[in-house]
Amino acid sequence: MLGINFSFMMAETIGGKGLSERKIEDIKEKAAQAVSEIKQRKWPELQFMDLLKDDTSAVKDEARRLNGVSENFLILGIGGSALGPKCILEALSPFHNISKKPKVFIYDNVDPSTLDCIFKNIDIKKTAVNVISKSGGTGETAAGFKIVYEKMKKALGGRAEEMFVLTTDPGKGDLRRLANEKGFASLPIPPGVGGRYSVLSSVGLLLAEIIGVDSGDLLKGAADIHDRCLKDEVWENPALMTACLCYLMDREEGRGIDVLVPYSDRLRSFSEWFCQLWAESLGKLGMGLSPYPSVGTTDQHSQMQLWMEGPENKVVIFLRVEDYGVDFQMPHGFDDLPGMNYLSGHTLSELIKAEEEATELALAKIGRPNMTITIPRIDAYHLGQLFYFFEIMTAFVGFLYGVNPFNQPSVEESKRLTFGIMGRPGFEAKKKEVEEARGKKTIFKL
Amino acid sequence: MLGINFSFMMAETIGGKGLSERKIEDIKEKAAQAVSEIKQRKWPELQFMDLLKDDTSAVKDEARRLNGVSENFLILGIGGSALGPKCILEALSPFHNISKKPKVFIYDNVDPSTLDCIFKNIDIKKTAVNVISKSGGTGETAAGFKIVYEKMKKALGGRAEEMFVLTTDPGKGDLRRLANEKGFASLPIPPGVGGRYSVLSSVGLLLAEIIGVDSGDLLKGAADIHDRCLKDEVWENPALMTACLCYLMDREEGRGIDVLVPYSDRLRSFSEWFCQLWAESLGKLGMGLSPYPSVGTTDQHSQMQLWMEGPENKVVIFLRVEDYGVDFQMPHGFDDLPGMNYLSGHTLSELIKAEEEATELALAKIGRPNMTITIPRIDAYHLGQLFYFFEIMTAFVGFLYGVNPFNQPSVEESKRLTFGIMGRPGFEAKKKEVEEARGKKTIFKL
Repeated sequence: MLGINFSFMMAETIGGKGLSERKIEDIKEKAAQAVSEIKQRKWPELQFMDLLKDDTSAVKDEARRLNGVSENFLILGIGGSALGPKCILEALSPFHNISKKPKVFIYDNVDPSTLDCIFKNIDIKKTAVNVISKSGGTGETAAGFKIVYEKMKKALGGRAEEMFVLTTDPGKGDLRRLANEKGFASLPIPPGVGGRYSVLSSVGLLLAEIIGVDSGDLLKGAADIHDRCLKDEVWENPALMTACLCYLMDREEGRGIDVLVPYSDRLRSFSEWFCQLWAESLGKLGMGLSPYPSVGTTDQHSQMQLWMEGPENKVVIFLRVEDYGVDFQMPHGFDDLPGMNYLSGHTLSELIKAEEEATELALAKIGRPNMTITIPRIDAYHLGQLFYFFEIMTAFVGFLYGVNPFNQPSVEESKRLTFGIMGRPGFEAKKKEVEEARGKKTIFKL
Repeated sequence: MLGINFSFMMAETIGGKGLSERKIEDIKEKAAQAVSEIKQRKWPELQFMDLLKDDTSAVKDEARRLNGVSENFLILGIGGSALGPKCILEALSPFHNISKKPKVFIYDNVDPSTLDCIFKNIDIKKTAVNVISKSGGTGETAAGFKIVYEKMKKALGGRAEEMFVLTTDPGKGDLRRLANEKGFASLPIPPGVGGRYSVLSSVGLLLAEIIGVDSGDLLKGAADIHDRCLKDEVWENPALMTACLCYLMDREEGRGIDVLVPYSDRLRSFSEWFCQLWAESLGKLGMGLSPYPSVGTTDQHSQMQLWMEGPENKVVIFLRVEDYGVDFQMPHGFDDLPGMNYLSGHTLSELIKAEEEATELALAKIGRPNMTITIPRIDAYHLGQLFYFFEIMTAFVGFLYGVNPFNQPSVEESKRLTFGIMGRPGFEAKKKEVEEARGKKTIFKL
């Protein structure tokens, strides 16, 4: 079971820059209200909590069908529609494409160079394509879909549609219309589940099944931590406590950047997934926290100088893995060299865990707050727990700030301006705005 | 040639939250002093500037030798010793391992699970190993080296050493001693060149040659931008101007987070490389900037909400690519759908460039400062320019703040504590410190 240790957030342990227990007591009621908002389902977007009870048979059937007709699996999606599957792939099947089948490609951009690489590495006739967009109208996803579909049509003619599955809203949007009218297979994303809260829906589960992971294990892990994450009492609820700590560190101490550092290469994408969840949910009204992606031990040689001696505006959240599932002992080679002999006889997992613990303490010693989330091992069950813990925790933080953690109103203007440049009917005024801006931009160039 | 456009950093264009020309005029002299510190070579660590004139024949010979005896190329290194090569690999040979030889693996951690994956995917007898550590004493790199060397020894016996090349200081350290005493091949990292400024040394150049990239092109690109980056006049020097803008935005406007957003999947690792350079060089004395890694268009669906509406503490630096080298036209499929038909007939590179321009303007319209670095295309020549531009620019920023941009003093304590946990002789007091801290950490757990 996932656990947290927040000793190094507290004044009792790290001194004046830590939080007092009093501060936590002071927001206990506010915290309990946040729990109540969730329990009472005040927001339709809390539907992501219902995913835990979902029947996975439709996803399993679809995975079986697609794996039967293909050697490659191509996801077209962006944002939450890509990061969840990417995270599952890298955590549960690292180095997947080098030796395993089906090969998996996630096209989460409109970079022509990447699409070219994908096409050069797949036989399109043997490629299953999962188009993922909650709204069904995501421009980047539509762009990839149009190109891939045409290529498939040329290769397979009337059988092209069979190679696709559209993952989208069950009732509306362009992709749903295509599923209804042109006979594409489809999987639903429930109406209340936003992109960044969708990893435990068919968005993430289909990919899991495609690569041989039992999607039920992801859901079971999440379900098993559900009750703990909904306790009213902050001192008994790890998600609520983490939310309160991040909130207080920002409000009381000006520490608004939260660095997430899993000590595992397999959780590198989990950091990215977290950043999207946190940034879109909490970057609101000029308030809010900035997430920061990291990975240990690697970033001890990249970011740690900044955590230790840079501006006092960060909280470091370690993610510690207890059992790596495999290990290597360091042999007694080069024992005459002082930089090498102390390692002999130890294992890599001892070393990675020692570095994690040492980095916690190095920060704590100079009063830089940090906390640790621990999971026993990286498997579908515990990954499901991590996803769900962070989703609930993010909602709590939003409620503490009084912002809506489920919308993302500020990404719209860039879309409208893009429509203007691309000549979409109805956006002529935006086109003009871009052209005027171009004129202004001629001065400050070097 | 690389260019910058900083119109959307300026009050003249984006209004009150931008900088006035006056502010730039006011630090012109300070800026010119920074140039003079570099020109006069006041710091031995400026030796990275001499790399541009290096003869690449030793690197080419070594690459030829290793490619002759191997099918895989494994780098053991961390921080600057890994990020530079990783960046070259992903920018210049994307999707490398799926279809190209030699397969390249970069082990930049001590995660046992990753090493297990690497071993499962290579024949060790056909694997060239590049151990990279400037000091020769990096713990993580030593750990990997010990394990890989033993495995090689078991497989090849007396021929094991032939499969290695040690990239390290030419005169000192454990790796140098091994090269001198045990006959390992080696390549030098000049004494004044620190890890994060080493990409244009044999650290990055060997990997370039291994994957068939002419390392001379990287150096030529850098050399061709050298003179522009050393002009005394800030209005003529793009590196100095960028440094001044970032410095002023932090000092005058409290915008201390610099988000780098290349609009290219191939430059995703360049964002990471930049973050290491910036974090270790400038995260000093409680001052300094925090870099932030990003990639467009992907992170428009991940971070943009935060850039637009989150705390007013960020500057967004776009990296725009003019020519992607390949393109795809979007066909007229699904033209009855309003979310798809406006794309028909346009190309992906039109779309990705439109989104980049739209995002610049969306930020500018609400007074959120941003600037754009433009490169004509992604090839070795322009990647060399990007590396060098950012290295010089980072040094300038350090000089403007009055910090040493070449050391990283605060990463040492975590190393000492790790030595304590691992039982390295001489670090018994650190071991005790860790044990005492463990005692204190029992309280705040959930």
